[in-house]
This record gives sequence, C-alpha cells and structure tokens, in this order.
Amino acid sequence: MTGTLVLLRHGNSEWNAKNLFTGWVDVDLDAKGEAEARRGGELLKESGVLPDVVHTSVLRRAIRTSEIALHIADRHWIPVKRSWRLNERHYGALQGKDKKQTLETYGEEQFMLWRRSYDVPPPPIEAGSEYSQFDDPRYAFLPSEAKPKAECLKDVLVRALPYWYDEIVPDLRAGKTVLVAAHGNSLRAFVKHLDSISDEAISKLNIPTGIPLRYDLDDDLRPLKPGGEYLDPEAAKEAAAAVANQGR
Amino acid sequence: MTGTLVLLRHGNSEWNAKNLFTGWVDVDLDAKGEAEARRGGELLKESGVLPDVVHTSVLRRAIRTSEIALHIADRHWIPVKRSWRLNERHYGALQGKDKKQTLETYGEEQFMLWRRSYDVPPPPIEAGSEYSQFDDPRYAFLPSEAKPKAECLKDVLVRALPYWYDEIVPDLRAGKTVLVAAHGNSLRAFVKHLDSISDEAISKLNIPTGIPLRYDLDDDLRPLKPGGEYLDPEAAKEAAAAVANQGR
Repeated sequence: MTGTLVLLRHGNSEWNAKNLFTGWVDVDLDAKGEAEARRGGELLKESGVLPDVVHTSVLRRAIRTSEIALHIADRHWIPVKRSWRLNERHYGALQGKDKKQTLETYGEEQFMLWRRSYDVPPPPIEAGSEYSQFDDPRYAFLPSEAKPKAECLKDVLVRALPYWYDEIVPDLRAGKTVLVAAHGNSLRAFVKHLDSISDEAISKLNIPTGIPLRYDLDDDLRPLKPGGEYLDPEAAKEAAAAVANQGR
Repeated sequence: MTGTLVLLRHGNSEWNAKNLFTGWVDVDLDAKGEAEARRGGELLKESGVLPDVVHTSVLRRAIRTSEIALHIADRHWIPVKRSWRLNERHYGALQGKDKKQTLETYGEEQFMLWRRSYDVPPPPIEAGSEYSQFDDPRYAFLPSEAKPKAECLKDVLVRALPYWYDEIVPDLRAGKTVLVAAHGNSLRAFVKHLDSISDEAISKLNIPTGIPLRYDLDDDLRPLKPGGEYLDPEAAKEAAAAVANQGR
C-alpha cells in the first residue's frame, strides 16, 4: 500500500508583508500567516486527511505552520522530522533586499530570471552579510562547501530529492499519510518531480499558501491524479493567481 | 563526553485551573501555562543552555510547552522525539474528577495515598469512560494489555525507564544537551532514578512548572550535583512550595 502525500506551504511571514526576499533568513509568521496555518489545520481535520508523520524545514515559518495546523487537526502528537533540505530556496545576495527596489535597479528581465528561471541562481551572498547563515548553529554540522551561497530552483531540487527518496518515500511506502510543511520553492521542486513538469513550465506554477495539497500515489510513487488535489480547490485557484502577481 | 540533561515540566493547563485530575486527558495549556513556557524559553536562552534535541510526551500541554520555549530560545529547529512513555501518570478512574470533591468523598488518607504513594494506583478507568484513551489514535499501535488503565508512580517509572535508556541516554552519550519536556510524574520518575531517591522520600519531591532543571552527568549517567540546578533557583523554591499545597 502506498500512502498519501500532503504538501503545505507556510503562510504570510513578517517579510512577505514588507516585500523583502527572505530565502534562508529565519523570519516568523505574521498574524495573517498564523491564520492561514489554522485554516490549513481545519482543512486537514474537515477532510479527514490526518497526517501520521510530518516533515518540515528548519525554518521557523514552516515549523510554526506545521505546529499550528497539527494542533488544530488534533495531530500534534505525530512524529516530526526536520531538514535543511526542505528549506526555502537560498536567495543569495538578494536576501534581505526589497523586491520592488530590486526590480527597479536590475530591470524586469534580470528580476524575472532570478525569480523564475529554473537554473539561473542570484548572485552569491557574502559570508559577512547580516543575512547570511554561515554562523547559524543549525547548519554547523555542514562542511562549508555544502552550505548554499545562492540557489536556483534546480539547486533546490538537487538538494531536496535525496530527502524525498531517503526520508519521505519510506514513510509513504509504509502506507502513512505524510505531511510536508515547507516553502514555495522546495514544494515546487517536489511538484516538478512528481508531475514531471518541464524546466520551462515550472516557472508558471505557483503553490498557494496554507491550503493542503493532497497527492495519492501509485506503486511507483507517481500521482494517480496529475497535479494532486487541493483540500480547498476554489481558494487555491484564487490564491495561486494572487501569488503570481506578488512583488509587482 | 557526557551531555547535559534539562527537565522542563509543563505549566498551568485548563484543568489545573479547574482543579481536576488530568492524567492522560489531552487538555491544553491556559494563558498562564503559555506564559510559563515562554519564561522557560527565556531562562534557556539567558543561561545559554541550548538544547540540541528535545523529547516530549504525546500530550498537548508538554508538546506546546516545548514548542513555545524552543521558539523563544531560537532552538525551534532541533530534532524532536515523542513518546507515550513520557506521558503524565495515568490517573485511572480519577481522570476528569474534581480534586477537592475526591478529597471530601474518600477522605484525606485515601486521597493522599492515590496522589502521593509510590505504589498504590488509583482505581482503573472503565473503557467506556469519556476520559479514557482506549480509542485514541495515538495509542492505536499499542496492544490493549499495554495501555494503562491506572498508574502509580512506580508504574510510571517502569514504563519511562526503557525510554530513558533507549532514547535519551544515547543522545547524552553523544554529548548533546537534551531537553525533556514532560509532566510532574514522568519527571519525578526520572529524578527519583537519577538521584536515587527512596520510595518514601519521593512523595515529598515536587518539581515546579516552567523552570528548566539542569543535570550535568558523570560517565555513569549520575548527577555531578545531586538534585541538579534550576535555571531560576529562587523561583523554583517558591513554586515547589505552591505545588505541594495544590488541591487543598
């Protein structure tokens, strides 16, 4: 028996509201983001999609989203695993920068390349930057060459897939309902992989925040229904449109 | 190198305020309990006692205490393990009952025997009781004979020690700072074991809520300083006195 995968993107953070590139900077959810997490938990509960295990990034906004949602769904007691491999894309030198200002400084073409291209990373962050994580204790175990200095979506996929195969797939093979609480780009990487989306087409795929996305998978871990199913399909449609216009 | 053990008892719950026996009933923290958890997190942060891993029960009040405290201490990203073996003592048929009323009905002697004796459990809970956990999905994997129907402190020690040896000790042996976020009686069981407290003397030991208790351990996992050290010793002294008078 193959289990059920549920992807949950964290809601609004303090820096979404300020329109700053966040990446690996560990900002918290704001009040709207907390409300989105609660709604995500209600959707899990109402739909009877009850996670047996949760995987999160090591970033606060995904961790708190999972905690809030699971408490609402009465699944606060399930096993938890965390990994930097589920983190948001590392935005390099753009971390901490204003999105609108970056657009004005570098122009539409460069801006969209950094935001949406599959394989063009932003400029690397400098070790001394206040928005770098070189000295963060949660990454201390990683040798310096393994600490990202900037990532494109392809880089995210390359570092997230080992976690998919090693940690998530075994839970699915055991027949579990597996919640992955993570970020726009780490979840896009999984969706690209699951739905075999091309390098070009993935740039137009937006995952809405706070709405659990359910995939039932076949014996080869491929979606029975391409694209999966949002637990609130109407809200997902509206939210995806809103995300596409973010930063403009 | 042997690591550092930090015990943290959850703060006030909705049923502490109502003066009901709680045990395995999964009540939430109240506002006071949340504030105690925040204070616990501040003490960890101020003292530089930064957990590398956290172990919790599967009960909401301990889980939320750990989540709140770790977010405050900027250690929300550490690995988490949970087990029913860290749960509060199962209070049997007393679960959901008023403490004062129980005292009046059964008298001082019987009441204190149930509350404080080492090896006299309360009467077993009935399967049909609204306060039993026989049908709770978090214990579904346990064969029915392994689901407690009532526990004395000795029973708690017997079911908690395997978790100590199998899950906590290896983390300590690896040199980690290990946070155990749990309950009055599961923590008393560990303290009884660590400090070799007699069956008689343990009845008088109260662990205050929300104040991390630090143990540095020798190579045989015995405390370098008997009784450990509260991160706020003055508050611990006052709080222990208050706990002793609880329910009176």
